[in-house]
Amino acid sequence: MTDGGFAYSQLFAKDLPPPAPRWTGFPKYNFIGGHNDPARIPAAALADAATAVLRRRGADLALYNFDGPQGYLGLRRLVVDKLARRPAIKCTTDDVLITTGSGQAIDLVNGLLLERGDTVILEEFTYGGALSKLKRLGVNVVGAPLDDEGLKIDGLARIIEDLGRKGIRPKYVYTIPTVQNPTGSILPRERREALLALTRKHGVPVFEDECYADLTWEGSGPPSLYAMDPQQVIHIGSFSKTLAPSLRLGYAVSVPEVMSRLVACKRETDSGTGALDQMVVAEYFSHNFDAHVGGLTQTLHDKLDAMVEAVEREFGTAVEKMWYPKGGIFLWLKLPDRIDVTKLVAPAAQAGVVFNPGPEWSCNAAASKSHLRLCFALPSKDIIRAGVAAFARVCFEETGIPERSANIRRTAASD
Amino acid sequence: MTDGGFAYSQLFAKDLPPPAPRWTGFPKYNFIGGHNDPARIPAAALADAATAVLRRRGADLALYNFDGPQGYLGLRRLVVDKLARRPAIKCTTDDVLITTGSGQAIDLVNGLLLERGDTVILEEFTYGGALSKLKRLGVNVVGAPLDDEGLKIDGLARIIEDLGRKGIRPKYVYTIPTVQNPTGSILPRERREALLALTRKHGVPVFEDECYADLTWEGSGPPSLYAMDPQQVIHIGSFSKTLAPSLRLGYAVSVPEVMSRLVACKRETDSGTGALDQMVVAEYFSHNFDAHVGGLTQTLHDKLDAMVEAVEREFGTAVEKMWYPKGGIFLWLKLPDRIDVTKLVAPAAQAGVVFNPGPEWSCNAAASKSHLRLCFALPSKDIIRAGVAAFARVCFEETGIPERSANIRRTAASD
Repeated sequence: MTDGGFAYSQLFAKDLPPPAPRWTGFPKYNFIGGHNDPARIPAAALADAATAVLRRRGADLALYNFDGPQGYLGLRRLVVDKLARRPAIKCTTDDVLITTGSGQAIDLVNGLLLERGDTVILEEFTYGGALSKLKRLGVNVVGAPLDDEGLKIDGLARIIEDLGRKGIRPKYVYTIPTVQNPTGSILPRERREALLALTRKHGVPVFEDECYADLTWEGSGPPSLYAMDPQQVIHIGSFSKTLAPSLRLGYAVSVPEVMSRLVACKRETDSGTGALDQMVVAEYFSHNFDAHVGGLTQTLHDKLDAMVEAVEREFGTAVEKMWYPKGGIFLWLKLPDRIDVTKLVAPAAQAGVVFNPGPEWSCNAAASKSHLRLCFALPSKDIIRAGVAAFARVCFEETGIPERSANIRRTAASD
Repeated sequence: MTDGGFAYSQLFAKDLPPPAPRWTGFPKYNFIGGHNDPARIPAAALADAATAVLRRRGADLALYNFDGPQGYLGLRRLVVDKLARRPAIKCTTDDVLITTGSGQAIDLVNGLLLERGDTVILEEFTYGGALSKLKRLGVNVVGAPLDDEGLKIDGLARIIEDLGRKGIRPKYVYTIPTVQNPTGSILPRERREALLALTRKHGVPVFEDECYADLTWEGSGPPSLYAMDPQQVIHIGSFSKTLAPSLRLGYAVSVPEVMSRLVACKRETDSGTGALDQMVVAEYFSHNFDAHVGGLTQTLHDKLDAMVEAVEREFGTAVEKMWYPKGGIFLWLKLPDRIDVTKLVAPAAQAGVVFNPGPEWSCNAAASKSHLRLCFALPSKDIIRAGVAAFARVCFEETGIPERSANIRRTAASD
């Protein structure tokens, strides 16, 4: 025991994450996280929505879960109506569970199906948050190959068969079929059918994450997997990307056998999802969904173009491959093999640039050490341009690549 | 596999809670849960607060954790100011973590300190949510004796010494010193000092839950344990009870060594606490805390009196002991030993009455089978009166007790 102090360190549980450093603000060039465009937050309309719902239902805030444990009925109705249109899902408000962000939906599905030592299949490049949750649960992750259209079904079939020969049935295939994270692809309809046929044959549920599916550049894409076969698919989505991430709202959609368990698991982990967020989002989006999402998507597309231009200008041929996304908020890149992006994290941060290194977004860290993800929803186009230039400078200083930026040959002395 | 269906039941994790039944609405006489008084929700003022903060900071909703992972600075400032007055806690906004309800704060402290097989000490009668979380974690719970003033320090000392002889150091003593849940007592200052001296001697942290401490009938009581010794105490509180439970907001206060770990653990479990709730509560309470809490407390005190009168009228001498609470939202009762209240749950529900059976709020289920908790914040005084009468009727029908209600002798035929 230190004098006056208390020997907490002897009492801490094993395997805690390292202590969080004191927060000192956001970096100047912030290319990570699912942040949204601040200029696209409809603050005045949200205030009107809050005023309307508080006048109508304010007294209900006195109750936990005033519309029951599946969430505010008005928001569940909105989800049902939204899904009926875009991915052509037929469901009722009884099939929808509102969650505190789609992250909680992932936790609930994991809690439902997974035990330490289980095996799951994810896309080879995938959402880092899903990977880190599985790691903490002690679950084995197998990566299935992707191409420019998404999951390669023949590759997935081989994996399931290989696992089967070892007596392993994966607990789920987690997929982001529409605006894949991080590659931005949209899985064609035929592959969706093949995926469902394959997993049905092997008795493997499909865990479909459609967090970005409302934010596509062209049309709405093929129906969701859940629309094609609700029995074997658990579907999740989010309002973080279409509206605002700090309103913590996502949802899960499933058949009753699964839903009754998800609801029971949620009741063990919280006392309900914040009601004001639910009421405000339901009120605002029930009048403004198409206009809002249309405008936001246009903004995101413009920012993507600014980022692609900046990357081409600053990195030139040093970018081996760029996955031009079909929607969403991120760009996935591959630099030459001899660049280990994890070694760029510290010097880039020093220059105010933060990005997602490939290994954090990949089932196979070693094979993705030259990949990286850049998010473009938060920064302005000017910040995107300046940040990508700053990043190229760091990259050159650390690796000698890119030799040319904006058609100017760099030398060590150029900075 | 059922035809058309999918064999989920073979895939579910072990030890899942049973499926949740379809929700069919709240019972007529709802005496459970931490619900608040609907008439005391300041809907119009909250709408004004929402409008003000959305105008000022609406664009920030585009960011996760826009003031960093410890929560909105405006709400942390409010917590600091509130704590500086009532329980005389000296802390800064760096010492405060905003949580998604105080339930999340309990989860984080448990995650920080506990592993399966560890031992903790709780008050013999205590918050059912804390007990159920510990049960799921596989932690051993030892109940320390209470009297009408709260924890009996000599009894606690014997428990710690007994455990010590077995080589067990408890990971914490969890206490609700101000408006104890469920007995409603307020621990006197001398006992607080003795508790801190005892636990300091044995190197055991104190986990102080002050969820109800703002809702006392007379004055503010002695300083909180954290105010008396921040080094060895982790302090949590909530806005659920003072404002509205469906705004999911609580907080933890601790020294930096603990705080840096709590923040790291929170970052692993969510993507931040809902920002709109934080902004609205900070805005509203920064102008209205005293007036709001004063009015609410008066309402709660009136409802308590209505409930005490109803219990005395309907149950008479059949109530062996009633703990008259010094604040809060619940009344703790003991019926004669031969009544097992768990057997009243189903017939009471049939009559529209739900209550907390003693075993759910006790470290020793067998020793509390004749205890029960009745919450009075949600129901109106008329509902309280009618519900207690309905409950007495059920109790008589099931057990023959109480024989007299409202001075009328019951017979089996009276209903």
